[in-house]
Amino acid sequence: MPTVEFWFDFASTYSRLAAARIETAAAAAGVAVIWRPFLLGPIFAAQGWTTSPFVTQPAKGGAMWRDVERQCAALGLPFVRIEGFPRNGLLAARLALVADESGAVAPFARAVFEAEFGAGRDIADRTVLADLLADVGLDPEACFARAASPEIKARLRAAGDEAGTCGLFGAPSFVTADGEMFWGADRLDQALDWAVHGRLCRRTVAPTGETP
Amino acid sequence: MPTVEFWFDFASTYSRLAAARIETAAAAAGVAVIWRPFLLGPIFAAQGWTTSPFVTQPAKGGAMWRDVERQCAALGLPFVRIEGFPRNGLLAARLALVADESGAVAPFARAVFEAEFGAGRDIADRTVLADLLADVGLDPEACFARAASPEIKARLRAAGDEAGTCGLFGAPSFVTADGEMFWGADRLDQALDWAVHGRLCRRTVAPTGETP
Repeated sequence: MPTVEFWFDFASTYSRLAAARIETAAAAAGVAVIWRPFLLGPIFAAQGWTTSPFVTQPAKGGAMWRDVERQCAALGLPFVRIEGFPRNGLLAARLALVADESGAVAPFARAVFEAEFGAGRDIADRTVLADLLADVGLDPEACFARAASPEIKARLRAAGDEAGTCGLFGAPSFVTADGEMFWGADRLDQALDWAVHGRLCRRTVAPTGETP
Repeated sequence: MPTVEFWFDFASTYSRLAAARIETAAAAAGVAVIWRPFLLGPIFAAQGWTTSPFVTQPAKGGAMWRDVERQCAALGLPFVRIEGFPRNGLLAARLALVADESGAVAPFARAVFEAEFGAGRDIADRTVLADLLADVGLDPEACFARAASPEIKARLRAAGDEAGTCGLFGAPSFVTADGEMFWGADRLDQALDWAVHGRLCRRTVAPTGETP
């Protein structure tokens, strides 16, 4: 079965849009999804940035929130323009790696994203995360203990190093088995197309209503 | 008839992708296109940038070229990874305003973009531009003279000021009659959808193969 690596950062609004629909879209395409949590912060820091371009560039940031609001409305997803963007996703990312050890990374990650951007909850808050872990059938205290282990901390750092080595510079990004990289939630369908066909079929980029 | 303003910069690879298909897509949607040439340079300069983020951020730049190459292949467009990106589009932009006075902005702009990104020609070169003007039925010398007039120079500066006031920060951007702004070639279909319906219809964002 073809695969696509789905690289996501819990602070990322567009990662949430991709997370909300990747499993349905991948199943329809016959592609298996490998969920890859990572932190964009170190990649931004390596460029001398201290926060998101959506914060340092106000016009771009305002357009991003409006765009995400429109996408959510079209997809039938709840939308909250959260305060304190970007939120600290370090603990959530470590917990996603823990959840992955139980095969629960997908439902946990979706739960985190929906809590954050659909309900406006603080994903840096352990009580919020404990609720979400329990909701997907995991033991919160065991997960927190495992998340604090050297193994999990090292694994998240290694994921960040791998992301940098692969040339990832934003989230979400999608990487197919042949190493093709796609950036942005609006490239999800093309990444799936590539995973299956090794190229883009025209239908995925043709204008609406036009026969390619 | 609903309208969409299509703001483009001749140095922009994604503006070219939008220019190549906007008229077909807009006609299918029943939307009239208002072509709005402008220069991103002053908007970048206002943020302290001296060139494109695709140059200052090499990972992002490399991904952009690969992405554009994929989109071109899928759309059946020729692709050249040009040297010296971003090219100087000042004279071409002034000439686009001149062409607009004869109702020829659309064919002239498309010709410039295809010469630049499809054939690798230098759009800052007057002999190249003269060929393109003649190709779309305009008198090159008359157009160059008009492009050097205070009126045309002022009109291009005013377009840049308007872009900044509207919160445009990149190209292409699309603005509907009710003031909704969309950034990026991959938002073209959504902008047309908004122009017609005042909202996004789900089909334009639903995953490939999924019934929304």
